[in-house]
Amino acid sequence: MTHPLFDKHRARLDGAVAAIASRAYWSAFSEMPSPKVYGENAPDDGKRAFEAHLGKPFELGQPGQQGWHGGESSPYGIALGVSYPVCDPDALVAAGHVAMQGWQAVGADGRTGICLEILDRLNKQSFELAHAVMMTTGQGWMMAFQAGAPHAQDRGLEAVAYAWREQSFVPAETVWEKPQGKNPPLVMKKHFQIVGRGTALVIGCGTFPTWNTYPGLFAALATGNPVIVKAHSNAILPAAITVRTIRAVLAENGIDPNLVSLCVTDKRATTQALATHPAVKSVDFTGGNVFGQWLIDNARQAQVYAELAGVNNIVIESTDAYKAMLGNLAFTLSLYSGQMCTTSQALFVPAGGIDTDQGHKSYDEFCADLAAAVQRFLSKPEVAHAVLGAIQSADTAERIDVANSGALGKVVLASTKLDNPDFPAANVRTPVLLACDAADEKLYMEERFGPIAFIVKVADSAAAIALSERVVSTHGALTVGVYSTRQDVVDAMTEATWRSKVALSINLTGGVFVNQSAAYSDYHGTGGNPAANASYADSAFVANRFRVVQRRYHA
Amino acid sequence: MTHPLFDKHRARLDGAVAAIASRAYWSAFSEMPSPKVYGENAPDDGKRAFEAHLGKPFELGQPGQQGWHGGESSPYGIALGVSYPVCDPDALVAAGHVAMQGWQAVGADGRTGICLEILDRLNKQSFELAHAVMMTTGQGWMMAFQAGAPHAQDRGLEAVAYAWREQSFVPAETVWEKPQGKNPPLVMKKHFQIVGRGTALVIGCGTFPTWNTYPGLFAALATGNPVIVKAHSNAILPAAITVRTIRAVLAENGIDPNLVSLCVTDKRATTQALATHPAVKSVDFTGGNVFGQWLIDNARQAQVYAELAGVNNIVIESTDAYKAMLGNLAFTLSLYSGQMCTTSQALFVPAGGIDTDQGHKSYDEFCADLAAAVQRFLSKPEVAHAVLGAIQSADTAERIDVANSGALGKVVLASTKLDNPDFPAANVRTPVLLACDAADEKLYMEERFGPIAFIVKVADSAAAIALSERVVSTHGALTVGVYSTRQDVVDAMTEATWRSKVALSINLTGGVFVNQSAAYSDYHGTGGNPAANASYADSAFVANRFRVVQRRYHA
Repeated sequence: MTHPLFDKHRARLDGAVAAIASRAYWSAFSEMPSPKVYGENAPDDGKRAFEAHLGKPFELGQPGQQGWHGGESSPYGIALGVSYPVCDPDALVAAGHVAMQGWQAVGADGRTGICLEILDRLNKQSFELAHAVMMTTGQGWMMAFQAGAPHAQDRGLEAVAYAWREQSFVPAETVWEKPQGKNPPLVMKKHFQIVGRGTALVIGCGTFPTWNTYPGLFAALATGNPVIVKAHSNAILPAAITVRTIRAVLAENGIDPNLVSLCVTDKRATTQALATHPAVKSVDFTGGNVFGQWLIDNARQAQVYAELAGVNNIVIESTDAYKAMLGNLAFTLSLYSGQMCTTSQALFVPAGGIDTDQGHKSYDEFCADLAAAVQRFLSKPEVAHAVLGAIQSADTAERIDVANSGALGKVVLASTKLDNPDFPAANVRTPVLLACDAADEKLYMEERFGPIAFIVKVADSAAAIALSERVVSTHGALTVGVYSTRQDVVDAMTEATWRSKVALSINLTGGVFVNQSAAYSDYHGTGGNPAANASYADSAFVANRFRVVQRRYHA
Repeated sequence: MTHPLFDKHRARLDGAVAAIASRAYWSAFSEMPSPKVYGENAPDDGKRAFEAHLGKPFELGQPGQQGWHGGESSPYGIALGVSYPVCDPDALVAAGHVAMQGWQAVGADGRTGICLEILDRLNKQSFELAHAVMMTTGQGWMMAFQAGAPHAQDRGLEAVAYAWREQSFVPAETVWEKPQGKNPPLVMKKHFQIVGRGTALVIGCGTFPTWNTYPGLFAALATGNPVIVKAHSNAILPAAITVRTIRAVLAENGIDPNLVSLCVTDKRATTQALATHPAVKSVDFTGGNVFGQWLIDNARQAQVYAELAGVNNIVIESTDAYKAMLGNLAFTLSLYSGQMCTTSQALFVPAGGIDTDQGHKSYDEFCADLAAAVQRFLSKPEVAHAVLGAIQSADTAERIDVANSGALGKVVLASTKLDNPDFPAANVRTPVLLACDAADEKLYMEERFGPIAFIVKVADSAAAIALSERVVSTHGALTVGVYSTRQDVVDAMTEATWRSKVALSINLTGGVFVNQSAAYSDYHGTGGNPAANASYADSAFVANRFRVVQRRYHA
C-alpha cells in the first residue's frame, strides 16, 4: 500500500511529526554551509550551478509558453540576465488540472513520499539556492544559505508533516455495523477518498522567495493540489530552481510534471486574473497590505492564506542585562537591514526611563546607548556586510532617506551607506533610529519596511503594554517582545498578547532573536491579528486544503 | 491538571475520538425513545417540561434585555405562545467577550469536560427537546426524537472530539534545546496558549434547529469562543432550551454563563449587524443561498461555515432489486415530506429505461412504478403521518401547489393533503413526482425544497453521470446516489463524485437511505461543492476556530 519514497523517508517524516507534537528542537536539514555536511564539492558545485543560470533562458518545459521574461535586478549590483518562460496562465491551470488526477491516485502516502524526496533533492541544491537567494534578495551569505535553503526546507517539511498527519486520520475504508436489536445489524461498507480542493496559487515575496513560499507550496502539494508558483518579479530564480526540481522528481515518479508550474509575468492583471480564476481554490500570499487585501476581497472562490504588513514592537521596562539586551536589539535591527517581516519597528520605552543592572537609564540615555550598540556592532566592515546584506528595493532605500531627513521623528542614529568591497554596486545601508512620542502615532503606527526603528516614549510600562496590544490588534504584528525584571509586567504583557494574538519573546539577551522563528517549534504568525490570517504551520494551515469524498453501499 | 468533568466523561470522549478515526459505527446517545434507556418517567416528564414552556415567557437571564418576542407557528397547528428575551446584540457580544477569559483559562481539557457535561444534560432532556423540535419543525415524532435529540447530541460530541483532538496536539510548554557544536546549546523555554478566535455566531435553520446547530455551537465553544445562537424565527424553543441548559452548566462550573446566549429578533438587519460585528470571528449558517451568500460577501471579518441549497440527485441505471430500490426511494422522498437538505430532488433515468430483476422497465414504467411505491408506502395513515410529519413553511406549501399544477413538469404523482386526526390543523402533504426532460434544466436545476422530485429523462447512463456531476459542481449537493449492477457505471459515478466532491450512496435497498448521515462515520457535506463550504465534521471544521499564542525566554 505504501509508496517506495514514503518508506525511504519514513524516519524523517516520523521525526517531523514528533517535532510538531513536542515543539522541541529538531531539524532535518543542516544549517551549516559546510563541506563536511554537504559534501566536499558542494560549495563549488553550487556556485557553478548558480552561475550557469546567469545570462541564459531558464528552460522549464511548461505548456502554453508565449515568450520569455526576466529583468531581475540584484541588490548586490551584479548582472543576472536570466529569462524565464512566460506561459499562458489558462494553459498552466488546465495542465495542472489534468495532472491532479494521477496525483490524487498516488494517495496521501505517495504524495508525502514524493514531497519528502523533493525536499531532499532541494537540500542537495542548497548552495545553488543560497546563491540565487542572496543575489536576488540582498541577504548576506549566511542568512541566504540558512533561511534560503535548510530553514526553508524545514518549513516545507513542517507543512508536509501537518498535511500527512491530518490526511492520515482519514481511513481509506471502514465497515459500519449498526445493531438493530434482535434483528440483523445494518452493515455498510464505506470508502473515503481524499481529494484536493483544486489549483493552488502561491505568490512569493521579494525578500524570502523560498522561506515564505515553501510552506504554502508544500501544504497545497501534499494535500493533493496542483500548484502554480507566482514568483516575485525580482526573486524569480530561487522559485524557478525549486519548480524545476519539483517537476523533475514528479516526472521520475510517474507524475505529470505540469502538476507544478512557475508563473512569470510583469503584469499585475495577469496575477489578478489567475487569483480569481474559478479553478484556483487557494492562494498563499506574502506581501503588502494593498494587494493582500485585494486578494481577500476578490479571490472569493479561494481560501486565502495571507501574510501582510505589521508593526512589530517591543516593550522595554527594565533589565538585569543591559549590555546583552542592547546587543540583542542591535543584532535584530541590523540583520538583513531590517528587511524581515519579523523585525521590530517600534520600541516602547517609559518616559521615566528604565531600571537596569547598570543603574537607571533615562529615555535619552537608552536612545544613545542603543545607537552606540548598533554602531559598535557594525563597526567591523566584514561583520556589517555579513549581517546587513544589501537593500532589496528602491522603495526601501527611499524610506531610509526619508527617515534620515528627520521627517519621521528625531534622528537618534542616522543610516549610513557602506561600501562593500566584494560588490561595489551593492546598496548597503545601516539602520536608522528615530525618537518620537507615543502621541505621534502617524509616524510609527504603520509598517515602514526596512532598517527603520522608532524608540517611542510612552508614559509608563502599563501604557506601553496597552499601546503594544492596540498596535497589534489594529495594525498587526508577527512578533513582539518585552524586557522586564518584574513578573507582573511580564504577566501583563503575556495576557496582552493572548488578547492581541501575537508571539512574545521575553528578555532575549543570548543567541536567539525576536525576529527568528524556528520550524517545528515557533509558530510564524498566529493568524489571529491583521499581520497574517494563517500560521506556519498548524492544522488549520493544511486541513482545509483537501476534502473527503465518501461512498457507501450495503455490505 | 485535568478537569473533574474531563475525567468524568473521559471514556465517552475516548469513544468519540476512536470513532472519528475508524469511522465505524458508534454512538454516545441512544436513539430509542425508550423508558428503559431514558428512565421510566422520562417520556412523561419530557412532555410536561415541554408543555410547561407553552404560553409563557422563557427566562434566560441574559444581559441587555429590551423586551420579549415570540410568534412561532407550529406546523402541527397547536398554539405555542412562548416568548423569548430580546437582548441588545452589543450587550450579548460584550458579555460574551468578558466571559471568554475564564473559558480560556479553564483550558482545552476543562472546556472539553464541560462540553461533555452539557451534552450529557441535554441528552437527559431528549424528550423535552424532541417535543420542542417536533412542534416547531413539523417533523414526525420518531424523527424529532432521533434527529432532534440523540443524533444532534452525537453531532455535537463529534465536533467536541475533533476540537479536542486538534487542541491536544498543542503542547502547553516545551524546552527547545539547539546544539551549538562545542559551545553550550541554546536553551529556550516556550509556552503555548490556545486562544479562541472570538465571538461565534451560530445561525440555525427552521427544519433542524438542533441537528444543524450543535456542530458549529460545540465546535466554537470547545475551542474557546463565546457563542451567540441566533435561532430561526420559527424554531426558537429547541435553541432556547439548549442555551438555558448550557448557561446552567457553565454557571455550576464557575464559568460566566454569558459565554453562550440566545439572540432572538424578527429583524434581518439585527442579524446582519451581528454577523458583521468586528468582534464576531466565525459564523455558522444553515439556510438559503441568498442570505448565505450575503454572509460570505459581507461577514469578511469572520470565517463563515455555510450549508446552503443544493440539488441532490440519483442516477438510476439498473438494479437487481427493483422492488427494494423503489421502496428505498419512496421512503427517502417521503421522510419529513422531503424537507431535508439531503433529500433527493432529481432522479436521472435513461430514456431507454433500465434493466431490473423484474425485466426491462421503460422510463414511463419506472415513473409509474415509483409513484405506486410512494402511494403504497403512504397508504396506511399512521405510517404516513409518522413519516411525513407536517409542512414547515408556507413557502414549501406553495411550492407543492405550483408543482401540482403542472407548471414544473408533467405530474406523475400529485401531492395530496392528508388529515392528521391528532393534529387537525396540521398541514400534511404527500410527495409530488414530476417527469421532465434533461433539457428542461430550469425546472429541476434549482433547489425546490420540500416533497417535490423530478424524474429526469436523460439520453443514457453516461449522460446521466455527466449531468449529475455538472449539477453538483454548479448548483451543489449534499448527497447523490447511483443504482447500477454494472461496475463500470458505479466506477464512473464514483470518479464523477471525486471531481464534483459529493458523498455517494450506491445501490441502497435496505434500511439505510441516501438522505441519512450518521455522526462519526458519514461526513455531512464535503465542503467542496456549492451546497456547503464545510463538513460535519472534520479537522477543518475546528482547526481554524482557535489560534496558538506562544511565549519564549532563555531557560
